Amino acid sequence: MTVDVGALSGRSVLIIGGLGFIGANLAGRLVGLGANVLLVDSMNPLYGGNMYNIAGIAARVKVNISDVRDRHSLPHLLRGQEFIFNLAGQTSHMDSMLDPFTDMEINATAQLALLEACREHAVDAKIVFASTRQIYGRPQYLPVDEKHPIKPVDVNGINKTAGEFYHILYGEVYGLRTTVLRLTNTYGPRMRIKDARQTFLGVWFRKVIEGEPFEVWGGEQKRDYSYVDDVVEALLLAAVDPGCDAMTFNVGGHEVLSLAETADIIRAAWPGARYVVRDYPAERKAIDIGDYYSDYSLLRERTGWQPRVSFRDGVARTLAFYAETLKHYV
Amino acid sequence: MTVDVGALSGRSVLIIGGLGFIGANLAGRLVGLGANVLLVDSMNPLYGGNMYNIAGIAARVKVNISDVRDRHSLPHLLRGQEFIFNLAGQTSHMDSMLDPFTDMEINATAQLALLEACREHAVDAKIVFASTRQIYGRPQYLPVDEKHPIKPVDVNGINKTAGEFYHILYGEVYGLRTTVLRLTNTYGPRMRIKDARQTFLGVWFRKVIEGEPFEVWGGEQKRDYSYVDDVVEALLLAAVDPGCDAMTFNVGGHEVLSLAETADIIRAAWPGARYVVRDYPAERKAIDIGDYYSDYSLLRERTGWQPRVSFRDGVARTLAFYAETLKHYV
Repeated sequence: MTVDVGALSGRSVLIIGGLGFIGANLAGRLVGLGANVLLVDSMNPLYGGNMYNIAGIAARVKVNISDVRDRHSLPHLLRGQEFIFNLAGQTSHMDSMLDPFTDMEINATAQLALLEACREHAVDAKIVFASTRQIYGRPQYLPVDEKHPIKPVDVNGINKTAGEFYHILYGEVYGLRTTVLRLTNTYGPRMRIKDARQTFLGVWFRKVIEGEPFEVWGGEQKRDYSYVDDVVEALLLAAVDPGCDAMTFNVGGHEVLSLAETADIIRAAWPGARYVVRDYPAERKAIDIGDYYSDYSLLRERTGWQPRVSFRDGVARTLAFYAETLKHYV
Repeated sequence: MTVDVGALSGRSVLIIGGLGFIGANLAGRLVGLGANVLLVDSMNPLYGGNMYNIAGIAARVKVNISDVRDRHSLPHLLRGQEFIFNLAGQTSHMDSMLDPFTDMEINATAQLALLEACREHAVDAKIVFASTRQIYGRPQYLPVDEKHPIKPVDVNGINKTAGEFYHILYGEVYGLRTTVLRLTNTYGPRMRIKDARQTFLGVWFRKVIEGEPFEVWGGEQKRDYSYVDDVVEALLLAAVDPGCDAMTFNVGGHEVLSLAETADIIRAAWPGARYVVRDYPAERKAIDIGDYYSDYSLLRERTGWQPRVSFRDGVARTLAFYAETLKHYV
């Protein structure tokens, strides 16, 4: 493949959700590539925004604190941007059931407003949208490829479906250059570990560093996990490869693991780490999707992307990060 | 099949969008069955609501003029209802592109609000939601069954997707009894004929009655058409058959016709009717779906439903209706 993310050097890049987990890691990489980076983030305390996430690069990026639901801010933030990484989202499945309207405002309505604003103010920008495997619902077959039926099992999955469909539609009808990446469980340094709003792994990592046992619910369920550096690479490739325009891709993990295997790898990665097994909570069963893992061969074939970081290595790096920085994340 | 729509006698029935085309025809049938019918309609002049639609039954129904986006009205309107036909919607594909936020408010946000209100105030009601074949986008195969991928080609299709997914989700998670019917082009007495917001057929019928030629765009494109009485029957069966709970069904037409064949049947049905053929307008091509017709075998197998009215007969009845009532519809 000939795509080279070095092409982002000197380019104007907007990251919406840029102080969050994936956004801040992406920002660090883009700064290294020599891009001019603007980070927009709501700093909503329920989401991933954290000023400490850009501690090492704060002098080399611009920051604008604003909510993606604020339509008046958009023209000012979009003008002149060549690449837009659209990562802002409400990610908690449980929160989407308890407060479905907020999830809709952020994951659907605001996405439509952003695309309308792009039509007017950033018509030539490349837009990469972070979607989720949640839109597939309970897998009808494994691994799940992009042709799998879309049948979300929670409000979050429905609103993310609308959000990504708008992106593809605005590409087809108005010629915006959009790519959708459907992410699976993403983990790594700078993830939210206060609670389970960015996967259960965040809470597990926190417990390990705090010297407490983490809770494994059930244990049989299979998942794949993307280390954040691999996701950042996928975002960059999707941005610079024109062959990704108007396409929707799964991003997948390095390996498939049961929750018990996941827990054992984490236990082995840190001295004193331990866990307890609990029954799967009843109130979560209704929106649980069972086993899930991605078929990411379409993205691999198109861009050469594949996950590089094993779960064992990714966990070690993540725990080492939080051992140093815990106070900024709890 | 043992389902009997006579079971609706004496029952409390709410029709949202009840002064519109399908809603008012359904109301007439329900009054005949002895149901206690409440019609809710916004009377938004861009949509289907028309007081003349209930001219024959006005004394036997209750009417409440309110917008489905008005959340405060919902508890009062929902309490005590046993059956809810949720037919309110923005139906124009072009309008959804020109004003995507209004389409979203009505077809997605308001649907979520309605379901939230049902959880609290009408938890035992049976809810039938009118969705659309538009959610399938350009057919990947024909006839289109319910397993066909969902890939809308306009904002309306995306928002209707969200609206119907919410209905199924609230059934699965909260136990609401919901059924989704995906309608194709529906026509018949009481449809909007002022403009093409309820299919192009409305405008064609108006032109015929006014003695003007109607315009056929292209002519090759294939469609199926549902006569409104057949759609009403499908709605009633979906409501009374518990086997339809939590299910999504296509509703299809009696036959498959090209636009040219469609035009010829209409021309033959009315003295002096004539048409001209025009190229398909460029601005509509981007959101055009090409050929479409439904596979409705799932609904037929479940309930015994099938289209009874041929296009020829339906057109004759429709034109006879507008010959008498034109002034109330233009």
